[in-house]
Amino acid sequence: MQKKKIVVALGHRALGNTLPEQKAATQRTARALADLVEAGANIVITHSNAPQVGMIHTAMNEFQKTHTGYTVAPMSVCSAMSQGYIGYDIQNSLRTELLRRGIYKTVSTILTQVTVDPYDEAFHQPSKIIGRVLNKEEAEAEEAKGNYVTPVEGGWRRIVAAPKPRDIIELDAIQLMLDAGQIVIAGGGGGIPVLEQGEVLKGASAVIEKDLLSGLLAEELHADELMILTSVEHVSLSYQSGEATPLGRLTVAEAEQYMEQGQFEKGTMLPKIEASVSFLKKGGKRAVITSIDKAREGYLGRTGTIIE
Amino acid sequence: MQKKKIVVALGHRALGNTLPEQKAATQRTARALADLVEAGANIVITHSNAPQVGMIHTAMNEFQKTHTGYTVAPMSVCSAMSQGYIGYDIQNSLRTELLRRGIYKTVSTILTQVTVDPYDEAFHQPSKIIGRVLNKEEAEAEEAKGNYVTPVEGGWRRIVAAPKPRDIIELDAIQLMLDAGQIVIAGGGGGIPVLEQGEVLKGASAVIEKDLLSGLLAEELHADELMILTSVEHVSLSYQSGEATPLGRLTVAEAEQYMEQGQFEKGTMLPKIEASVSFLKKGGKRAVITSIDKAREGYLGRTGTIIE
Repeated sequence: MQKKKIVVALGHRALGNTLPEQKAATQRTARALADLVEAGANIVITHSNAPQVGMIHTAMNEFQKTHTGYTVAPMSVCSAMSQGYIGYDIQNSLRTELLRRGIYKTVSTILTQVTVDPYDEAFHQPSKIIGRVLNKEEAEAEEAKGNYVTPVEGGWRRIVAAPKPRDIIELDAIQLMLDAGQIVIAGGGGGIPVLEQGEVLKGASAVIEKDLLSGLLAEELHADELMILTSVEHVSLSYQSGEATPLGRLTVAEAEQYMEQGQFEKGTMLPKIEASVSFLKKGGKRAVITSIDKAREGYLGRTGTIIE
Repeated sequence: MQKKKIVVALGHRALGNTLPEQKAATQRTARALADLVEAGANIVITHSNAPQVGMIHTAMNEFQKTHTGYTVAPMSVCSAMSQGYIGYDIQNSLRTELLRRGIYKTVSTILTQVTVDPYDEAFHQPSKIIGRVLNKEEAEAEEAKGNYVTPVEGGWRRIVAAPKPRDIIELDAIQLMLDAGQIVIAGGGGGIPVLEQGEVLKGASAVIEKDLLSGLLAEELHADELMILTSVEHVSLSYQSGEATPLGRLTVAEAEQYMEQGQFEKGTMLPKIEASVSFLKKGGKRAVITSIDKAREGYLGRTGTIIE
């Protein structure tokens, strides 16, 4: 039997914030991923990277202040570093978990770049909060550099554009590994955002929503299924009103209707639904949104929000 | 005609030290690599990472001093980050250079771990200098943590073990991409050194000599050729005596004889010869050591030190 090809997207809960947290979190996450492999899926893993890229960005920028010859590390470079760092922990945790279950499979991480449109309207309205809380002086220094900041509790934080993903540069390599039955970690943090300028790929000062990238990747790889593992077992309607109605199975048309009604929180649940709908409209068979602990149950269709 | 499979090892000269240096250096390096592709080679690229991993190590360790919940980033984590960072610059420079020549090929970076033997004698005699110059207080603090330091001009520097590479964990993925005619960057910095403890791969506080890893990779991939690009056009005999005799073509037996005579500098040229000899003894057809600028000439057998 042909194995199901699934793109599995891991959110913040799957990774934690700090170095020790990530180490521990990826071990728990690996059990969920191994459940899917054991249940017969061929998986490509994507993941978020916000706290990790924030850590690297801060560390690198502090470094260059006291070391001659170094410049500020662009967001794209920090993103590349974060893919290395997070991929390393996920692939090892998963490899170990699979070996303990007697499954031998190559698990590897591929650096992934994703182009964005320089005319994407997101560049006019930066919306994605990144990095630590800044004081007034630091916030003004960021603005003087042409960066955007937004007031938050206790100060300011940087905001960057969150343009839509367009082309996945390393798609051929990811496809090759998936087709060979290997497990691949790709598109970390939504991919390294780049602008295509002739033959050059130039790092963009932006962040790609990892759910949207995961949907695009699933579509381009002709995957059967998109699975988004998050902190809740079900997507809920009227999430903000306090009387949440959990969603079980629904159709694409229903999902679109709820989106129009503004039922999903921007920046968290909305992109998950958007990514699912887009994937299903372009040939995907099923999208499942559930919690990490319920990955196997969701895969078997027994829980989670399932869009078909 | 079956294309020649070549593992190309890039040294420090190919990458520079700082962020802007690396950006510029990889553009020059890309021309040499594109020459090889244009001449008909299928390449796997390996590279060193000493200044880059030093930068990341310092930046991450400074970061954790002022951020609660974070711990010191192990050498293995810093190495993973450096593979992401350096791979990103190499793959983009090469992609651009190939497109300018009308060549479309997927170029990607794969995170690579390499096991080392916990009983490798190198662990008893750390020899590889890493990181910046430390003052007395810092050097003592390192020693208190169980790390080794060695006196250098102006202070001390950390030294770590340089054990021999054993198994390349992601070999199957690299082989798959090479066989498909894709260009792969792998084994950066000699690979992330890990110890195999049952089903777990534990990061090792060590550095693997990238030339030795390159030789092992060429052997395991059944490559036709190992090409080590360095800062000099030829390996020279009696390098230290001042009267250098450049070597052209030589046999494995001759190379071994010179090694026995101590003709090659430890830590720089010796591992290049060792890697070449080991690769040739295990089925490799040719090893070429030459400068980056002469890559194409070396590939065509017109210059460089060629061992057959």
